[in-house]
Amino acid sequence: MSQTIDNRQFRLARRPKGLPERDDFDLVTEPLAEAKDGEVRVAIDYISLDPAMRGWMNAGKSYIKPVGIGEVMRAGAAGTVIDSKHPDFAAGDKVSGNLGVQTHAVFPGDELRKVDTSLADLPVYLGALGMPGMTAYFGTLDVGQLAEGDVVLVSAASGAVGALVGQIAKKKGASRVVGIAGGPEKCRYVVDELGFDGVIDYKNEEINDAVRRECPDGIDLYFDNVGGEILDAALANLRLHARVAICGAISQYNVTGNVGDTGYAPRNYLSLLINRARMEGFIVFDFADRYPEAAREMAAWLSAGELKHREDIVEGFDTFPDTLLKLFTGENFGKLVLAVER
Amino acid sequence: MSQTIDNRQFRLARRPKGLPERDDFDLVTEPLAEAKDGEVRVAIDYISLDPAMRGWMNAGKSYIKPVGIGEVMRAGAAGTVIDSKHPDFAAGDKVSGNLGVQTHAVFPGDELRKVDTSLADLPVYLGALGMPGMTAYFGTLDVGQLAEGDVVLVSAASGAVGALVGQIAKKKGASRVVGIAGGPEKCRYVVDELGFDGVIDYKNEEINDAVRRECPDGIDLYFDNVGGEILDAALANLRLHARVAICGAISQYNVTGNVGDTGYAPRNYLSLLINRARMEGFIVFDFADRYPEAAREMAAWLSAGELKHREDIVEGFDTFPDTLLKLFTGENFGKLVLAVER
Repeated sequence: MSQTIDNRQFRLARRPKGLPERDDFDLVTEPLAEAKDGEVRVAIDYISLDPAMRGWMNAGKSYIKPVGIGEVMRAGAAGTVIDSKHPDFAAGDKVSGNLGVQTHAVFPGDELRKVDTSLADLPVYLGALGMPGMTAYFGTLDVGQLAEGDVVLVSAASGAVGALVGQIAKKKGASRVVGIAGGPEKCRYVVDELGFDGVIDYKNEEINDAVRRECPDGIDLYFDNVGGEILDAALANLRLHARVAICGAISQYNVTGNVGDTGYAPRNYLSLLINRARMEGFIVFDFADRYPEAAREMAAWLSAGELKHREDIVEGFDTFPDTLLKLFTGENFGKLVLAVER
Repeated sequence: MSQTIDNRQFRLARRPKGLPERDDFDLVTEPLAEAKDGEVRVAIDYISLDPAMRGWMNAGKSYIKPVGIGEVMRAGAAGTVIDSKHPDFAAGDKVSGNLGVQTHAVFPGDELRKVDTSLADLPVYLGALGMPGMTAYFGTLDVGQLAEGDVVLVSAASGAVGALVGQIAKKKGASRVVGIAGGPEKCRYVVDELGFDGVIDYKNEEINDAVRRECPDGIDLYFDNVGGEILDAALANLRLHARVAICGAISQYNVTGNVGDTGYAPRNYLSLLINRARMEGFIVFDFADRYPEAAREMAAWLSAGELKHREDIVEGFDTFPDTLLKLFTGENFGKLVLAVER
């Protein structure tokens, strides 16, 4: 019989009001169970911190069941197989899945994905080759219906999803890609590193003027990660038959604590009528059966060095509640990942 | 040489602020010109009064050029050919087209449509077989992507477009069609005459409660003619992958006088994200090359007595400015048409 492993977990203690706080979570240690038939035990190396996590903490109807009080906080994660009672996995394999905010997991092998760390480092499977990558890919090409020659505007452009949206759009024929980011450092990154054609610093520019300046002929596709006034500025500058892909609304998640009942309502929604335009929400999980197709194309770009990505890796499992906040204050720079110390 | 005909015209005198007033128009009489080659002279019998006219009076960017100050007010109309220098038309033919708010018109024959009054009375060609019919047809089936089994909610359900939306939806397999109308008389009409499955009286019911009551399992297609709080109530009750077809926003047109800069902003737009739903504006003119297809199907239903329609015909050309207001106060009951006295 193997030695007992301590598993440390952040469990949801109560539903946050506004920004999540340390006391919204309980840090619990329990012995890691043995794997049953079909299960795999994983030592988690990296935990993905994503804006969507805020929504999962709320009670009430949403696109996915809320995390229950007392349950391990939901999160994507990647790690190393300790031992396996599933035929597809063996000790030492690198894997990713919805493993939660914990240092270890006992997990059904059927819900685990084996990843190839010779192609990209493990944290990349939580970013460009993980949910953010899939989100950017299907949000731009399927929901956003990107067409040759399009002018594309992306908010949170230095973030995990936004950075990929702009690059995918360029690869697929956009004539001009403009990003919105906060502060000169991120703005420089968006243009100099990611290769966007223009950038708007929402912290230091009047957003309406800046959108008109950067998209003087209007916008064909706006990929929205933030909501609020930036969405309104985009709506005011749509072109005929434009598409607005609503991926998120991070500016609003902590206003009332309830996604779908926001503090901000888009005054300019009738631009959809004038411009015969479309605004559509999407959830990456809806495209799950097509992940392999996207992953193949993204991996090919990545291994050819044609897809820039950046991970913001914070060390220390215990920092989870504070590190999560970086998403909502705009402090993170790149895909936010928590590294579990060994 | 024919006798001089006096043509009376309402010309736009100034841009209205809020609701249009009598003094926003000049009533002018001028002699009707002779037809030049390719032109047709028409004695107008019926003028279509439509919510969209309010938008056409505004300056500024919209889906169509604003009516210029001093120009004849734009309107669809139907009438009788006086004489013709176009090979397709002869005196006595019944025709419809964008003839304007005037008693007579000299008009390019190529932009005129001959209509068959043995199939339906002339005013019907401004309603069920005119723009409102085309709007309902393409808005429901193409923009709204109506699918078998859908729950459909329609605002302004006793109006020219709404009444047809519900009937078309039923014909095409909707499982439940609910209308929103103002006052008991219109509500009775919607259920008893038009055959809707349910109705909401927005003047006498709390709209959110009523939408939940009538659509307890949510809405697959909301066809929006009104905007405002009714749109928000619909958004709050969308089903997964729902569609919101934005046809108009009559509650908002007179708030600021500027379509696209409304007084009301939809607080619940993030329901689009939660439900992976779509909100799309459309203009019937975009479907112009497919009008014949829709007109054929609508005419077949009509001649089989399967499509109920109702015209609200107001006599007297001079009443135009006051009659137009009925649209915005909700006073009209059915397709609002102005009859030109002879």
